[in-house]
Amino acid sequence: MPANPHADPPRNKCLALAGGVGGAKLALGLSKILPPDELAVIVNTGDDDLFHGLHVSPDLDTVMYTLAAIANPETGWGVAGETFRALDALRAYAAPDAWFNLGDRDLATHIRRSDLLQQGKTLSQATASLCAALGVKRPIAPMSDHPVRTILHTDEGALPMQQYFVKRRCEPIVSAIEYRGAADARPSPAFTAAIAHAAAIVFCPSNPFLSVAPMLAIPGVRSAIADFTGPRVAVSPIIGGKAVKGPAAKLLRELGHDATSVGVARQYADICDIFIIDTADSALAPEIEALGMTALVTDAMMLNDADKIRLAQFALNTARQTAPTTAPKPAPKPAP
Amino acid sequence: MPANPHADPPRNKCLALAGGVGGAKLALGLSKILPPDELAVIVNTGDDDLFHGLHVSPDLDTVMYTLAAIANPETGWGVAGETFRALDALRAYAAPDAWFNLGDRDLATHIRRSDLLQQGKTLSQATASLCAALGVKRPIAPMSDHPVRTILHTDEGALPMQQYFVKRRCEPIVSAIEYRGAADARPSPAFTAAIAHAAAIVFCPSNPFLSVAPMLAIPGVRSAIADFTGPRVAVSPIIGGKAVKGPAAKLLRELGHDATSVGVARQYADICDIFIIDTADSALAPEIEALGMTALVTDAMMLNDADKIRLAQFALNTARQTAPTTAPKPAPKPAP
Repeated sequence: MPANPHADPPRNKCLALAGGVGGAKLALGLSKILPPDELAVIVNTGDDDLFHGLHVSPDLDTVMYTLAAIANPETGWGVAGETFRALDALRAYAAPDAWFNLGDRDLATHIRRSDLLQQGKTLSQATASLCAALGVKRPIAPMSDHPVRTILHTDEGALPMQQYFVKRRCEPIVSAIEYRGAADARPSPAFTAAIAHAAAIVFCPSNPFLSVAPMLAIPGVRSAIADFTGPRVAVSPIIGGKAVKGPAAKLLRELGHDATSVGVARQYADICDIFIIDTADSALAPEIEALGMTALVTDAMMLNDADKIRLAQFALNTARQTAPTTAPKPAPKPAP
Repeated sequence: MPANPHADPPRNKCLALAGGVGGAKLALGLSKILPPDELAVIVNTGDDDLFHGLHVSPDLDTVMYTLAAIANPETGWGVAGETFRALDALRAYAAPDAWFNLGDRDLATHIRRSDLLQQGKTLSQATASLCAALGVKRPIAPMSDHPVRTILHTDEGALPMQQYFVKRRCEPIVSAIEYRGAADARPSPAFTAAIAHAAAIVFCPSNPFLSVAPMLAIPGVRSAIADFTGPRVAVSPIIGGKAVKGPAAKLLRELGHDATSVGVARQYADICDIFIIDTADSALAPEIEALGMTALVTDAMMLNDADKIRLAQFALNTARQTAPTTAPKPAPKPAP
């Protein structure tokens, strides 16, 4: 019997929402477990900016380099074994953007991406081209092909994400965060398709305000996730009251939230079913459950690839066990 | 007595027309002799092209790097001690322009220039900014701030200059050369000023078709040089029937000219007074003089800086000795 083209698409994808280093780590774990067509990694582009006139997508690149196994494990950004000859020369030219670290190898990514965009390609198409060349088979896509810019309103004025994060080292006190352009943006084709085909949604352990919120700010995304009937699993980026990397804890405090996994869980209360926290935070489970989510405890620190795979497997198992009753029943386990 | 602002500007500049490696060499010699305000090096931009969306100005860069003492003496292009990390990565991305050699250090020049142009600066302003950062005090300026593209019509079709020169290694047979855009271009402000202030004009030993002709194709330039009453001196880029570097001899042949200094001299017959040839070509002097120019013989091969200074001095002395009678008379020589 031929497939009915009007039938609902198969809901077999794990939709992972990722941004930054934590997101890249869990995305790598998921990519080691799931076949390519069962994973869609949708990446924050609120950090994107022009440097020297070149389009830089820090989160897309971190995820792409991580999945291509060329990421620099020490810095969390850029490529391993990087050199900085062009940047040195740009500094000699007094280029105003030379404070932003761009290695020679990395620069090629931004040059190629900018060239593709200038030729009329979308950011999704440019990303697919770069990923294909790097042998990244798992689909990575930007959250949107439209510009969304995360602007932090601080005691030093309004700062685009990278100026806050890199140039000012997250030191300014943040009073509000704006996702400029989000109201006019649409989800990328891959994001739309991933929501339509999702069997589960995973919020990677990324900064809720800087990595995940820009995606949720795109019209229709938050409501689509709220209406999603499959399992929605979040992994906390906070362990023991500290962000594993980056300013998540500081931002939580400055924006008036608890600088704990509870503070993060509260951001996702209406759009998440299962919240995974580290064993160090197991005492917080009741508070998280009080928000209407299931709190699960595991070792959430990802120091090596085995950690990433184990945590990804934990998140996937959790999702499978809480699959909605409308989904096909899992095959009965063989008797021991 | 205050200077009269309506008086003619002082004619104290040596206007050097340069392009490519030979041009850069003589420009260096001139820059070692003349004070900054008495030299204007106007450089061919017919070779300019976009690579990876970045504006590359090969001749401007060769002259700039040479005067900044960072040029690669072996290749004739780029920077000494260059690395090619970004280019390797661009090749991995299957970037269609990756056949064009761009070093990491060099790439910074094109990134910075492109950024300045994107911000609305002219090529003249961008060039001045780059030169200032590299400590190049002698004014270097593009022939025009408008795009002029040298297109070679060949047995393999129409090829932009760098495709002919680098990608196809000057192998195609050339039937005609087009200076696309020249009719709509204007000389750069520095070029216009240099013509107005010139005490002498020097045609550097550059390719007559690929480096000098694009400048002459800009409306008003050839006639201004034809009308110029001061000394006009050309240095032949051909020695012993061979171009010192590049395809000048091959092009002369293919375009139906003698592949000798006579063939070059014929290109300048109406706009040049003195034609300097190498001692190897002294037998050609009568043929050149028959074109209405004075032929002067010297050692025209520039293998080191001393050669460049000596040849530049020879050209300047020649120009001074043939200064027009309307110019202030030179001070009498002291008695021996």
